Amino acid sequence: MVAHLPPMVPDVVQIDYPDWVREAIAWDAVYRTDEERMRLAIAVSRENVERDTGGPFGAAIFESDSGRLVAVGMNSVVRLNNCTLHGEMVAFMMAQVRLRSFTLNAPHLPAHELVTSCEPCAMCLGATLWSGVRRVVFGAGREDASRLRFDEGPVFPESYRYLEARGITIVRKVLREEAVAVLERYRAKNGMIYNG
Amino acid sequence: MVAHLPPMVPDVVQIDYPDWVREAIAWDAVYRTDEERMRLAIAVSRENVERDTGGPFGAAIFESDSGRLVAVGMNSVVRLNNCTLHGEMVAFMMAQVRLRSFTLNAPHLPAHELVTSCEPCAMCLGATLWSGVRRVVFGAGREDASRLRFDEGPVFPESYRYLEARGITIVRKVLREEAVAVLERYRAKNGMIYNG
Repeated sequence: MVAHLPPMVPDVVQIDYPDWVREAIAWDAVYRTDEERMRLAIAVSRENVERDTGGPFGAAIFESDSGRLVAVGMNSVVRLNNCTLHGEMVAFMMAQVRLRSFTLNAPHLPAHELVTSCEPCAMCLGATLWSGVRRVVFGAGREDASRLRFDEGPVFPESYRYLEARGITIVRKVLREEAVAVLERYRAKNGMIYNG
Repeated sequence: MVAHLPPMVPDVVQIDYPDWVREAIAWDAVYRTDEERMRLAIAVSRENVERDTGGPFGAAIFESDSGRLVAVGMNSVVRLNNCTLHGEMVAFMMAQVRLRSFTLNAPHLPAHELVTSCEPCAMCLGATLWSGVRRVVFGAGREDASRLRFDEGPVFPESYRYLEARGITIVRKVLREEAVAVLERYRAKNGMIYNG
């Protein structure tokens, strides 16, 4: 027999940032180039590992033209007991709550983009399509994550073609070595591999 | 020039159920068959449409053997300004918070399954892999959602083979016509199509 289920209340999922986010992020800086934006995403991934708040993945949402930072996201799966909270997903959610819009492609908004320290998994690539970002920049690749036994799920070359056909630009392997260094640091710390 | 961004606080995403969930769901019932489980998922999708709380999609997580209901989920994209909140995602998050586990496949837990009124999109199919459910049952198919111009994203036959190769069973088109009737009802009400 299985144990009785815990009570249903509270039926609320609350997603917040770890404490270090307020101090570690230059919220008011302008991030002009892909490299500057990627450096921030990688810094988020690194802090998440060093502070023991999650897996080695960081992401950020920027206004494409102005370079303004809208939101960051860090892997929060274990910290918040929620398999959906990859870095990209946290970044999308935080950006949309901040802008009070379920799409970052709303008519009153400037173009937005996702910058992520590692190639998105199948879930995050799907969410990218729904998020309204017009551009995706990633650092480490699928094969780098796989070396740590992080599964990326069913992503195929035609998955990217599907996004590109809907006007989303994909930019690959910006500052890849710096992003991979954080993956390696997580492995050296014996970080948890939390596939379902 | 773009407008100034709203203030950063509060940096919290809160995901809750619409009010009708407490009264409309038989939480303590035992759901023995695929049809009984699907009837609940479709009822959730229907309530979401009739009460104007979101898109025509409902889902539920069950303990596979006992038939006990662990969580429900309903599309909450527009209600909560969050592109990731498809019915399946809400169900995964609520189940994992309730069980205090980032995977429903933890050693101390019985096998769990996802029952959803419509075929999962690319994001939800990826999340299915991370959720730890061992079985997925869906009602309406991709082509039924597409008729309403709901995009399902990059899902291919090999996407399903990827999940099946990892031990996840897929059961298709249970009570399809009842599920499609809710999609049609949403269209008749001129419900919003909220792709990114």
